[in-house]
Amino acid sequence: MPSDAVLIVGGGPGGLEAAATVVDLGGRVVLVEKHEKLGGTPIHENYAALTPHFESAEEGMQRMIDRVVGNPNADVRTQVTVASQEGSAGDFRVTLSDGSVVEAGAVVIATGFQHFDPGRETQMYGYYEFPDVIALQDLEAMLKDHNVVRPSNGEKPKRLCFIQCVGSRDRRIGNEYCSKVCCGIASKEAIEVRQQNPDCQVFIFYIDMRMYGYWENQIYWPAQEQHKVQYVKGIITEILPKDGRLLVRGEDTTMGRPMEVPMDIVVLSVGMEPSKGTRDMAGIFEIPQNKYGFIETAAPPLDTVTTAKEGVFVCGAAIGPADLEDTISSAGAAASKAVALVRRTAAAGAPA
Amino acid sequence: MPSDAVLIVGGGPGGLEAAATVVDLGGRVVLVEKHEKLGGTPIHENYAALTPHFESAEEGMQRMIDRVVGNPNADVRTQVTVASQEGSAGDFRVTLSDGSVVEAGAVVIATGFQHFDPGRETQMYGYYEFPDVIALQDLEAMLKDHNVVRPSNGEKPKRLCFIQCVGSRDRRIGNEYCSKVCCGIASKEAIEVRQQNPDCQVFIFYIDMRMYGYWENQIYWPAQEQHKVQYVKGIITEILPKDGRLLVRGEDTTMGRPMEVPMDIVVLSVGMEPSKGTRDMAGIFEIPQNKYGFIETAAPPLDTVTTAKEGVFVCGAAIGPADLEDTISSAGAAASKAVALVRRTAAAGAPA
Repeated sequence: MPSDAVLIVGGGPGGLEAAATVVDLGGRVVLVEKHEKLGGTPIHENYAALTPHFESAEEGMQRMIDRVVGNPNADVRTQVTVASQEGSAGDFRVTLSDGSVVEAGAVVIATGFQHFDPGRETQMYGYYEFPDVIALQDLEAMLKDHNVVRPSNGEKPKRLCFIQCVGSRDRRIGNEYCSKVCCGIASKEAIEVRQQNPDCQVFIFYIDMRMYGYWENQIYWPAQEQHKVQYVKGIITEILPKDGRLLVRGEDTTMGRPMEVPMDIVVLSVGMEPSKGTRDMAGIFEIPQNKYGFIETAAPPLDTVTTAKEGVFVCGAAIGPADLEDTISSAGAAASKAVALVRRTAAAGAPA
Repeated sequence: MPSDAVLIVGGGPGGLEAAATVVDLGGRVVLVEKHEKLGGTPIHENYAALTPHFESAEEGMQRMIDRVVGNPNADVRTQVTVASQEGSAGDFRVTLSDGSVVEAGAVVIATGFQHFDPGRETQMYGYYEFPDVIALQDLEAMLKDHNVVRPSNGEKPKRLCFIQCVGSRDRRIGNEYCSKVCCGIASKEAIEVRQQNPDCQVFIFYIDMRMYGYWENQIYWPAQEQHKVQYVKGIITEILPKDGRLLVRGEDTTMGRPMEVPMDIVVLSVGMEPSKGTRDMAGIFEIPQNKYGFIETAAPPLDTVTTAKEGVFVCGAAIGPADLEDTISSAGAAASKAVALVRRTAAAGAPA
């Protein structure tokens, strides 16, 4: 029998926006989240502030959670995952990891991304070797605690740099795509480091600064003009320990000369890869993935959220690299298509 | 008395997606478009193919039009604009330029952008002076006709270049923002020129190539590897006529040396500015605009479409630089919020 519920898989920004949209439209939602807490990557990876407006990640995500939790039409289930499914559009029966079964007319997959692991395949830049080589999300957690220090000795850094495109734009590791947000996130974190540690010089080594749209005027110009973040177009080839610091070696491509600069902390701007949940959902719902493992939409750019599996929609970084605005917009779009499908199915199945 | 209709202003990709979403959700829509034809900028500016998948713009937009026109719940009015409005959320009364009045519970503004006029303020790069200096949309029209020739003499070009960031990232002309899509559009057009005129060399002079997300692997790599488009990081300072061709002068910033290259056609990659319709709607609906004239959303990045005026939502490039996927997603999100508001208002106003 057709179900009027929409199943949403994932309780991060995309899943919460999708859930809020469904209940706003008068629908009924079951939201499934594998963690104990809702909020997704901004919460589980301890983000400090959201890009580009520096709102507290906890406050922003709490506002989204409050739109869903407690709503009589929202059945929120945490610490549980989707184990299997059967049925079809209008009438899915989805079994969860706790053995319970959810009936849903449509599904929105909002399982997002995971950060590229800089230890994968190669010991790229010594992430697991040198304690003062960290990743974007490690610095987020330090910024949240207002405690940006060298992990090796607890001292405040005097020089910190970001290396862009770690795990992105890289054929060798199989990720040819650009992860879209790392230029903006690194620049935002660079500003925060300069605010919290004004004595620390901050450098960003980049190939292209992809500060698209308003990020240019919201983040990139202020980073340079107000916060004196130093952008260097260059390629970093290796990081070596030397005299208790890190020696960053590469080429300054604008100056056309080799460079060797000492740093106290090196931050790897790791890219996005599909999360385990995204890969799992593609398998369970039998939806095509692209060669990178993200879920394919059927007809971009004029349909951004419909998959090849009727009744299953996708949003946010489960589709590919996405910023928060991309995720929120596609979540609203996916939820509205799910509600429309459920409504159509119910109308078709109603007694004459 | 509350109205259950949603007024959509603008019949381009955003307006059509918003309209289709409202009717899919069982709502009623009035769509107002100033031109005779629906389809928006891709149709009125004679786009050849859509970015990034090279689908025919006419076919893609016709598919969107077919989802709306003829639907009994969609009242489509062309060659008409919004003249004034009164009322408030749930109960707007909007007067059109033909004197008719539309009652609507909510409004979605989808009035988009216009191309930066390279003649504005300065005779930048000789757009109005030299016939072989054209803009992105001029080349689109030539590509659509499969007739890329020098406007000055009708001959096929042997060397063609794009100059990026014309009217973007430029404090002097007041547009500090990046227009987001011009790197992708120029690269797409570069590929099409190479396909239609294989004997023509194609160059792109850029500051940063902002081929974010999948555009990197979908367009940027193929442009270089399969189609031999030549990307040069450089700054162009002037264009001069010389020996019947155009002499492009500037600095190759990677090589660190001045350059002077002859070209047959120079394409200015003009950025996005708010359309007249976007500026007019901001005024008529009393919605705050940012300093560039685009319509401000109230709470980005976690709400991408709600304006400060209750009951009025905005999508696509009326908010700021947006690619087609941004526009389609935000249109779906805006339409769902509009339908939810109309539904809430109707429920509140219903007899007990």
